[in-house]
This record gives sequence, structure tokens and C-alpha cells, in this order.
Amino acid sequence: MSGLKERIIAAAAPDLAAIETALRDNLGAHLEIVQETASHILFAGGKRLRPLLMLLSARICGYGGDDDIPLSTVFEYLHAATLLHDDLVDGAHLRRNKPAAHAVYGNSIAVLVGDFLLARSLSIAARPGKLAIMDVIADITEEMSQGEIHQLIKKGDLLLSEAEYMEVIRRKTAVLIQGACRVGALLADAPEARIDDLTRYGHHLGVAFQMADDLLDYTADTTELGKEVGADIREGKLTLPLIRSLQKADTRQRERIEGIVRDETFSPDDFRELIDLLETLGGIAYTRRQAEAHVAEAKAALTTFGSSRPQETLLNIAEYALYRKV
Amino acid sequence: MSGLKERIIAAAAPDLAAIETALRDNLGAHLEIVQETASHILFAGGKRLRPLLMLLSARICGYGGDDDIPLSTVFEYLHAATLLHDDLVDGAHLRRNKPAAHAVYGNSIAVLVGDFLLARSLSIAARPGKLAIMDVIADITEEMSQGEIHQLIKKGDLLLSEAEYMEVIRRKTAVLIQGACRVGALLADAPEARIDDLTRYGHHLGVAFQMADDLLDYTADTTELGKEVGADIREGKLTLPLIRSLQKADTRQRERIEGIVRDETFSPDDFRELIDLLETLGGIAYTRRQAEAHVAEAKAALTTFGSSRPQETLLNIAEYALYRKV
Repeated sequence: MSGLKERIIAAAAPDLAAIETALRDNLGAHLEIVQETASHILFAGGKRLRPLLMLLSARICGYGGDDDIPLSTVFEYLHAATLLHDDLVDGAHLRRNKPAAHAVYGNSIAVLVGDFLLARSLSIAARPGKLAIMDVIADITEEMSQGEIHQLIKKGDLLLSEAEYMEVIRRKTAVLIQGACRVGALLADAPEARIDDLTRYGHHLGVAFQMADDLLDYTADTTELGKEVGADIREGKLTLPLIRSLQKADTRQRERIEGIVRDETFSPDDFRELIDLLETLGGIAYTRRQAEAHVAEAKAALTTFGSSRPQETLLNIAEYALYRKV
Repeated sequence: MSGLKERIIAAAAPDLAAIETALRDNLGAHLEIVQETASHILFAGGKRLRPLLMLLSARICGYGGDDDIPLSTVFEYLHAATLLHDDLVDGAHLRRNKPAAHAVYGNSIAVLVGDFLLARSLSIAARPGKLAIMDVIADITEEMSQGEIHQLIKKGDLLLSEAEYMEVIRRKTAVLIQGACRVGALLADAPEARIDDLTRYGHHLGVAFQMADDLLDYTADTTELGKEVGADIREGKLTLPLIRSLQKADTRQRERIEGIVRDETFSPDDFRELIDLLETLGGIAYTRRQAEAHVAEAKAALTTFGSSRPQETLLNIAEYALYRKV
């Protein structure tokens, strides 16, 4: 699979550069601390996956206008807004190998600049003058906030079911990615059936991305990951590798897993032992299989579109979800 | 002026009851902690000024449809969302004689439920299918977040100018009240000139309300106010009575004022001395005169409308801004 990321980047290079410029331009002439805090989270090496998906979704539907690049920034701003608030809520220390914004600028600024980025994204989303787009944005913000609250109240709950996990990742990750794809199709005035295809593609891609992300917490090292490994369980987040393993564990294994997860000061050796247990019990392999199934569904949703460069890149992005290292 | 509040409430009673029901209905079937936290801030004796202003603005323009009551909740939800975040940012302990939500439920829930209420208000605002309404909502959220940030970075700055104070209160208070009035007129498909009149009414009313609120911090007692008197200067917020008095103070008076404001543990005697200084230097009388001038502007903006029951209530509300105790 080597070269997949490079092929995506090569195909998307002019768009990625235009997105980067638009992200700066749309921040506008705001207070210095807003610029600084927003830049801390926005220009820290993000892949711009969400804006890119919006652009490609518009293009695959034949869009040829000028509104796509500015509109695509909405999805990066929304993403950054939720990261600011979530890192604060989770008490996260690092993001992309840098101290989290709330740790640098304080909780108050993290809350208010998160609010500002959300507001900025609404203003930009309103520009093309399409109500259906505003409806999607309203849905996204509502679902995401509920997903985050759901995750917070289930924090540390070792009885979290696979169904609840799926509902949380749908809301906190898939809804935004799916919304980016849907808005691209809406901007292009695509027929209802194509809008639905791209929405389905985005949903399954989003689920696969989050599963892959949850796997990385058990498989990557700190530098690759850009945050502490084991951060999820330290923050009380039960993800699929663990949920599945707990289903399959015998009493002794379950007690050992629970002991490590409940101990906030677990050692690197404890964490390695936990990973061994998740391997043995099949939780890691199961999560990878589930992610693969969602990637297959995402790709299948694009078959109604004829072969094209945007289609090829969207297919490559789906494939990349499985093999990405960070 | 006795009986003004009673006359407003009598005229608005059926609307206020309908707003109350809609505020509960529109919260919908959400997670228990969301309901509880949202209710803590929403059902604590708020006057429903903002929803009521939207309704009256629609009615004065002849609106007779069914979208007004549900839509009016947008302005109470937006208000509640900002209160949740601001109380956290300000480190406020009390609101309406109850512990602030972040003190009861924790910072994380206050952040996320604030996000949820904002998202909820977007979904409701999208329902009538009018882009111009969504534009107003996007503007409101952006201006308000910038106003709060501006206030935060100027916290404790004894050099805050009157112009900066005006900009902060425009953004953090007037923009929402003005937006409620504007949206009422937009819902009614009023002519451009009437939309502008109601927007102007809302702007001046909002400024007058905030000035009156800032005066109360120096004139009301704790039970009337529902929060600690002197909370503004304790939170480092310089308001007009103080800004104007500092302009007029001699060196000795300035030093004494600065000493009290900078001392976070000021005593009741210190605070009384501060109030005496603000009286002597005219800061309190000046603020009252400014508020009166804005009330006069608000009323003047309604003269183009013929005499009607909504007009009478809107005029009474403007008058009430000056004489309210809380």
C-alpha cells in the first residue's frame, strides 16, 4: 500500500494549497489572540481531509463554480472548534506533538475561540445561499455535541456496548465527514440519489477512520501518534478493540484488563500486557475487520458514478483509511 | 413608573406561556444530563425578553403565521448557551441566586451543553426555510464570541476607553437583542425600511439594557441582583460608571479607585466608598443619562409604525429598561 498517501496528495496538491490559503483568508482580521489560538490548532499539520472531501464530492458531481474552496473551510473550522473544546473536556495534554491549546492559552480562551470558529464556519456556510447546506451544518453541530456528551457521561464505563460505541463514533466523527461529502453534492446541485450515495460514502469512511484512529492508540508509538499512547484509556474512553476483547475474555482476563484500565498510573509494561491481551482475545483483529468492511461499503457507494479523477481520489482516500499510520 | 413591568407582563401573558412550553418542547428527548443542565440555566426565572421581542417584532409587522413561537426559542437558547460559557470563563459563582451551572455540573458539561444549546438553536432557526434568518444567526454568534473574547483580554485593564466599552456591550448584549427584533421582522416579510427600524430599536434597547445592568452592579443588593454585588469589578470588568468616573477623577481619587478595583478582597466598606466616588464623580449619573438617550432612540425607531398593541408593549419594554430593578 506504499505510495497511496503520496498518490492522494499528488492528485490533490493544487486543492490542498488553495484550502490552506482559504483557511488563512477566512480567519480575517480578528483579534490577535483569536488568530494565534485558532492558528495553533489550525496550522499544526492537519491533513485537511474534511475540506478535501467536500471539494472532491462537488467535483465528482460535476461542480465547476468558485464557491467550493471557501465553503470547504467550514469543515476544517468545525473540526478545529470541536478539537479545542474536546481537548479541554478530555484534559488532553498533547495534540500533534504540541501542547493542547487550553494548556497554552488557558481554558477560557479555548472555550471562546472554539465558539468563534464554530460561528465563523456558520457565516461561511451561509454564503452560497443554500438552505439545504445550512440544514446539514445545523445537524452536524447538534449530533457532534450530543456525541461528545454521550462519550463524557460514559467515561470509564467498562460496560459500554459495541452499539453504544458505534453511536458515539457516528456522532463525533462520521457525521462531520459525511456532512462534508453531502454538502459537496448539494453545492453541485446533484440529483437526490447521488447526494445520498456521497452521504453514504462519507458515513462509512468516517466510521472506518475513527476505528483506525482507535486502533492507533494501541499500535502506534508516541511520536507517530502526536499524543501519548494509551491516552484513550487514560481519558476513560473505551474503544472497539477493548470492548470486543472484554466480550471474549474469561473472568481472569477481564479482571486483568479492568485492573489496567482502572489504574490511571499504569506503567508501559502494563500497557504492553494490555495490548497482548487485546491481540490474544481478537479485539484488534476484529476492529480491523470492521474498519475494512466499512471501507468496502464506502467504495461501493461510489460505483454509480462513472470513472473520473475525483472518483479515483475518493477511492484512494477510503483505502488509505485502513493503512494510515497517523 | 410603578406598574410598567406588570403592564408588559399582562399584555404578553399568553405569549410568555407559549414561549415557556416551546422552550421545553424544543429541548426534545435528549440525554438526561443535557436536559438537567439546560433546564438549570433555562428555567431559573429568566424574563424571556429576547423571545418576546422577536414575537412582538413579527406582530408589529403584521405576522399571523405559526412559526413565531417555536422560532422565538432560538434567542433564549442562544442566550443560555452564552451564559453557560461566560459564567465558566468569568469564574462566576452565582446566577439568579443559584450556583452557576459549571459549579454544579463541572466545566466539561458546561462547555458541551453550551455547544448543544447553540446547535439546537441553529436547527430551529433553519426550520422556517429563510436564508436571511440564518444569516442573522450566524452574525450574532460571531459577534458575540468576539465580544466575549475582547472582554476577556481587556479584563482588569483600567485604561479601557468608553469607545471600547461600547463595542464590547454592542457585541455581547445588543447584537442578540437586535437580532431577535430583526428576525421577527424578517419572518413577517416586512419591507426593508421596517426591518431596519426594528433592528435599530433592538440595538438601542440592547445597549440601554446592558448599561442598566452595569448600573445595578453598583446600586442593587445581592438578593435583588441574584449574584454578588461588585461581581463585575471582582471579575475585572470595567463598566461605564467606572470608566466615566476615572476620566473625571483627580490623581488622588484615581489612585483610590484603582486601589479598590485591583484588590480582589475588597471589603463592603471599600465597595461603599467606591460607590460614593462614582456618585461624586458623576459616573453613575452619566451612565443613566446615556441609557436614557438610547431608550429615546429605541422609541424613536418605532414611530414609523402605526399605533398598535405590539407597538405599545415594545415602547413599554424600552421604558422598563431604565427602571428595572433586576
